[in-house]
Amino acid sequence: MIVEGVHYLASDPPADVAWKLLAVNLSDLASASANPLGVVAGYCLGDDSWDRAFVAGLHDALAHFDVPLLGGDTVHIPSGSARVLAMTAFGEASDRGGARGRDDGIPGEDIWVSGTIGDAGAGLAIAMGREGPDSLLERYRRPTPRLELGHGLRVLGGAIIDVSDGLLIDATRLAEASDAAIVIDVDAVPLSHDYVGFAGDDREARLRAATSGDDYELLFSATPDVGTDVLRYAEKAGVRVTRIGYLEQGCGLRLHDAAGPIPLPERLGYEHAPS
Amino acid sequence: MIVEGVHYLASDPPADVAWKLLAVNLSDLASASANPLGVVAGYCLGDDSWDRAFVAGLHDALAHFDVPLLGGDTVHIPSGSARVLAMTAFGEASDRGGARGRDDGIPGEDIWVSGTIGDAGAGLAIAMGREGPDSLLERYRRPTPRLELGHGLRVLGGAIIDVSDGLLIDATRLAEASDAAIVIDVDAVPLSHDYVGFAGDDREARLRAATSGDDYELLFSATPDVGTDVLRYAEKAGVRVTRIGYLEQGCGLRLHDAAGPIPLPERLGYEHAPS
Repeated sequence: MIVEGVHYLASDPPADVAWKLLAVNLSDLASASANPLGVVAGYCLGDDSWDRAFVAGLHDALAHFDVPLLGGDTVHIPSGSARVLAMTAFGEASDRGGARGRDDGIPGEDIWVSGTIGDAGAGLAIAMGREGPDSLLERYRRPTPRLELGHGLRVLGGAIIDVSDGLLIDATRLAEASDAAIVIDVDAVPLSHDYVGFAGDDREARLRAATSGDDYELLFSATPDVGTDVLRYAEKAGVRVTRIGYLEQGCGLRLHDAAGPIPLPERLGYEHAPS
Repeated sequence: MIVEGVHYLASDPPADVAWKLLAVNLSDLASASANPLGVVAGYCLGDDSWDRAFVAGLHDALAHFDVPLLGGDTVHIPSGSARVLAMTAFGEASDRGGARGRDDGIPGEDIWVSGTIGDAGAGLAIAMGREGPDSLLERYRRPTPRLELGHGLRVLGGAIIDVSDGLLIDATRLAEASDAAIVIDVDAVPLSHDYVGFAGDDREARLRAATSGDDYELLFSATPDVGTDVLRYAEKAGVRVTRIGYLEQGCGLRLHDAAGPIPLPERLGYEHAPS
């Protein structure tokens, strides 16, 4: 579900909201190494022109990802209420090993992340009024589900989670589910050129990137001996992947950079709270 | 999706809201002659004690219908917003003829309805302050999906729809989808003893019953020669069924009673509108 004023801004273009609703659901499939089969949507009717633009945008997004809309429901909501948009995505787990989950990690495995981190968080700041490049705004409004990478990784074992609430909080979820500790090299967290131009690349900027949400990149573990396979599948999927840490025995999260250990920030991610 | 203030009242007990969310989804499966396999839920977190009571009620309702909760999502909504509850139910269509739909009717078939009509509409009036028996209130708050009947009917052919917005409006939907006209004998519409005690059984009371929503009974068509089979399946499912009309060539809805044709009421059902 995505909620106006929580997961998107009332000022976001309706077509972008439709894209996001679909993309975040497909990202969940990607993190299960599943191929999408179709979606059902639950839609709160409201303003007529907003509704039309949303439907047109949803049509385009479904066509882009080649996913059918199988059905759904429309409801009215009392005026003044925040719009709530629901979607359920159906996917098919592979016959070669089935769906992977966040609990399939093993101590000793490397931790990888796809794409770049922090762009969407910067895009949110831009959507709320800060000056910054459109490319970052686009990353907030139109996340890219890593379907091909997720599907490719299915044969390599290890855990997968998608980064929705922030790299650090989602990393701790993967580690906790896998009954392991996770160690992340903050210097290794991949930042885009635009992000560095917007926020810099010092420790503070890196931690901000790693604790903002909405990246919808894949965070996954793999044994060190399949590292070249990981790179190969990523190249095939046309997405960059970066090794940023490892799992070890124990529990919790440790951060370091070239200078040594880093204290954990107060906030590990963005857990959407009531406004 | 069900929405606070639209599909249920803010004053309804949270456990009853949970029941309704599940029951209305299972009713959709019943109207497709499908057996439930599981559900996913999307939940708007709000008041802590309300949330707890809802979860306990959902647990009980799932156990009652023996349906697993397979997953879902929780979100926060801005304070002051109406709560929106989403559910997607998964069911298995039979291998003997597959799922039936509202478009499978043929002119000449009889029209049947399960249970009694109007109780939930009376229950809504009681929930909003009118004096009346708890049994009617219960019918509004805890509808019964006709799963066994729907599944039993799968072999008989004909169309099925569940009565959610009102008998007359849902009857016209069945007829329109089946490319037929529908004729209903208002005298035959089954009323409960409690409904008659509450509202009477004159033409006005009957039309009110047939135009209020939330019954979640099954309205279905069947050729006259399988009438005894319909009664047999209904008996096996432990639910009363009543023949209330027929499909004919043409389009639209005609009403009559013993005295002759009845003009259509202005409103055929309750299409949930913004408040």
